[in-house]
Amino acid sequence: MARVIELNKSVTESNDKDAEELRSDLKEQGVFLVNIMSSPGSGKTTLLSRTISDMKETTNIAVLEADIDSDVDAVKIEDLGAKAVQVHTDGMCHMDAGMTRRGMEGMDLDGVQLAFLENVGNLICPAEFDTGAHKNVMILSVPEGDDKPLKYPLMFSMADALLITKMDTKEYFTFDLDLCIDHVKKLNKDIQIFPVSAKTGEGMDAWENWLRDNLF
Amino acid sequence: MARVIELNKSVTESNDKDAEELRSDLKEQGVFLVNIMSSPGSGKTTLLSRTISDMKETTNIAVLEADIDSDVDAVKIEDLGAKAVQVHTDGMCHMDAGMTRRGMEGMDLDGVQLAFLENVGNLICPAEFDTGAHKNVMILSVPEGDDKPLKYPLMFSMADALLITKMDTKEYFTFDLDLCIDHVKKLNKDIQIFPVSAKTGEGMDAWENWLRDNLF
Repeated sequence: MARVIELNKSVTESNDKDAEELRSDLKEQGVFLVNIMSSPGSGKTTLLSRTISDMKETTNIAVLEADIDSDVDAVKIEDLGAKAVQVHTDGMCHMDAGMTRRGMEGMDLDGVQLAFLENVGNLICPAEFDTGAHKNVMILSVPEGDDKPLKYPLMFSMADALLITKMDTKEYFTFDLDLCIDHVKKLNKDIQIFPVSAKTGEGMDAWENWLRDNLF
Repeated sequence: MARVIELNKSVTESNDKDAEELRSDLKEQGVFLVNIMSSPGSGKTTLLSRTISDMKETTNIAVLEADIDSDVDAVKIEDLGAKAVQVHTDGMCHMDAGMTRRGMEGMDLDGVQLAFLENVGNLICPAEFDTGAHKNVMILSVPEGDDKPLKYPLMFSMADALLITKMDTKEYFTFDLDLCIDHVKKLNKDIQIFPVSAKTGEGMDAWENWLRDNLF
């Protein structure tokens, strides 16, 4: 059993202000917080598991798992030896800054350099709420298709980095990587794009170096 | 270019009542409306395309495509010779009954026996709003993983039928079909489950027969 925190909607109306405060407080503690967003089943937990395995010798990592229900993800992360807390969102389709703060306060952050918030699986609502993270990262998996930037433009517009996951399955799907990158760059010319496979390790170095470069 | 209707949030607060009225009005017109829900990229449009191709000789079909942006799906459906209208949800993460009514009113329903609402790609919010459809169908694709019922229980609980899509890719992913069905049946013992591949045609007959049996 992973530690589970039940959350309700934040009472405050000033999410942007709360987010700025959380971002600043975490920076003071030396904790770089990355908000990971995607559809359900795009491979967030598998990606994080591989990232933790690759980086844990040199970097102290913690994960805040947000889901409507279950603790399957937090258990997987704990099995890797990383700190993990599961938060339940009381049916809510996204995390906000107040919820993120309560989740982070439920973790022992002593010595933690890198924290991931695995947001609720949803390509729409999480893009509308600043969680207080220092970087917003989204995941698009190859099986989802190269047209997703056309249909869910907000998330592609606000992300600092895009991971294109499950690249090892590319030959089984109709997915045009160049076309997808074109769609994304039209929405967000500064976005960092990392095509990766957590299964084969393809592209993981570039993603992990980006994380290391951003640590405080 | 497909016909595009821009929608705003419905002004009424009585979504359940609106949904009942729409359901009754459509039944009177002989139109069986099926609400299709899933994550982004689970294969809703591909599934619908195959279903239309298989059934169009015997059944008059129309599709209401709901997205935040773009008209790529409606164009694909029109290319098959079916009626299609694209609605844009003004950033909203789901369709409600008022929005569905306005979309349906934008279509020529004369002679239509079967209408699909392709809801916004989202495994959470659409489950909370009755659209006025006669049946709610959800799609889970093999690449998304067999643990999704644990994490998004509401949608699996309220659906009348579940299509497990992209079965042709099963050998490339860790997906335990029996385990998945167990998870789903614990939430919803009466749900109809159809494992299918729109690519190979596997399982499509059972799904299409279920649709035919439900026509008015």
